[in-house]
Amino acid sequence: MFSERLEKQMEFIAEIDKLKGIKRQTLLINEDRQENDAEHSWHFAVLAMLLSEYCDEEINMLKVMKMALVHDIVEIDAGDTYCYDKEGYKTKADREEKAARRIFAILPKDQYEELYGLWREFEDMSSPEAKFAAVLDRLQPLLLNYRKGGVSWKNHGTCRSQVEERNQCVKNSSEELYRYIMHIIEDACEKGMLKK
Amino acid sequence: MFSERLEKQMEFIAEIDKLKGIKRQTLLINEDRQENDAEHSWHFAVLAMLLSEYCDEEINMLKVMKMALVHDIVEIDAGDTYCYDKEGYKTKADREEKAARRIFAILPKDQYEELYGLWREFEDMSSPEAKFAAVLDRLQPLLLNYRKGGVSWKNHGTCRSQVEERNQCVKNSSEELYRYIMHIIEDACEKGMLKK
Repeated sequence: MFSERLEKQMEFIAEIDKLKGIKRQTLLINEDRQENDAEHSWHFAVLAMLLSEYCDEEINMLKVMKMALVHDIVEIDAGDTYCYDKEGYKTKADREEKAARRIFAILPKDQYEELYGLWREFEDMSSPEAKFAAVLDRLQPLLLNYRKGGVSWKNHGTCRSQVEERNQCVKNSSEELYRYIMHIIEDACEKGMLKK
Repeated sequence: MFSERLEKQMEFIAEIDKLKGIKRQTLLINEDRQENDAEHSWHFAVLAMLLSEYCDEEINMLKVMKMALVHDIVEIDAGDTYCYDKEGYKTKADREEKAARRIFAILPKDQYEELYGLWREFEDMSSPEAKFAAVLDRLQPLLLNYRKGGVSWKNHGTCRSQVEERNQCVKNSSEELYRYIMHIIEDACEKGMLKK
């Protein structure tokens, strides 16, 4: 009755509804609950739309937005790995690779290749778009944490040096956003949100 | 220390975090809770990415994705109006216009104009992109409702004719998705999810 192509696309669309149930460590600014991956991906895509002017390289905004929308879909199977969880990071790449191959393969072949490719490029930071997407993926939770008084950092006993280290990659993609992020870290530290 | 432009953009990014707290009538497929506007907007943007090939007119996919990301931001002030709520619809336009003028105006002027313009165009269905965005904005909750066994339709005593009427606009933008939606409505009716 309908093409196999359309059925596959609809199956994928239903499957990724699960992303709304994957919780992150970040808390919402106005509610006392954890953000989920779908909410984060939406916010991240809006950042791509509004802040691309700060990228020091020429980029294709559509590609950054697509990366934002799909970059966390692998977490449906692999779960969210907290960015300062050293143990979790040891198995993260394997878990996510397996997840990408299962979930994106629900789509027709050409779209599987596009989405798998976007995700792989994002993970490898192998293009100006992927590098800038990495900047926004760091900036979004940082802004939320900071506006929330650093609750998530305090809960995890996060140190200034950890956050600084995680944000070093920002420098190569956007000097202005790097300066902005370092300013927030400085202020968060002064206000006791981050350990020195 | 930072430009007024960057400060305004960051203020807007923090403000729209509230979209994650605006609940819709649709339930998630795998959890017994209502979807929120940020989750819906993310899902809608992914639909734009995957289903644009079914639009019968030539469209700019980036524009449809941007519309998806910003179309519900007005609901931070105006709240979600259930699509079959006749009373709510009487005041919807006024409430949303006021909200758009307040929230988008947090941005620098050029971005205010872009986002207000995208939202207005979406509401007026005044371009091929806006018409196709309207299709996806209808298809996304329909798919969730259907996969959830029609719980939300049953709770509201929704009739087949209401859903059919709401989806008539799909025909002008995508014959294939119209056919698909009508097939789902037919099946939902046979399975008792919708009143005849």
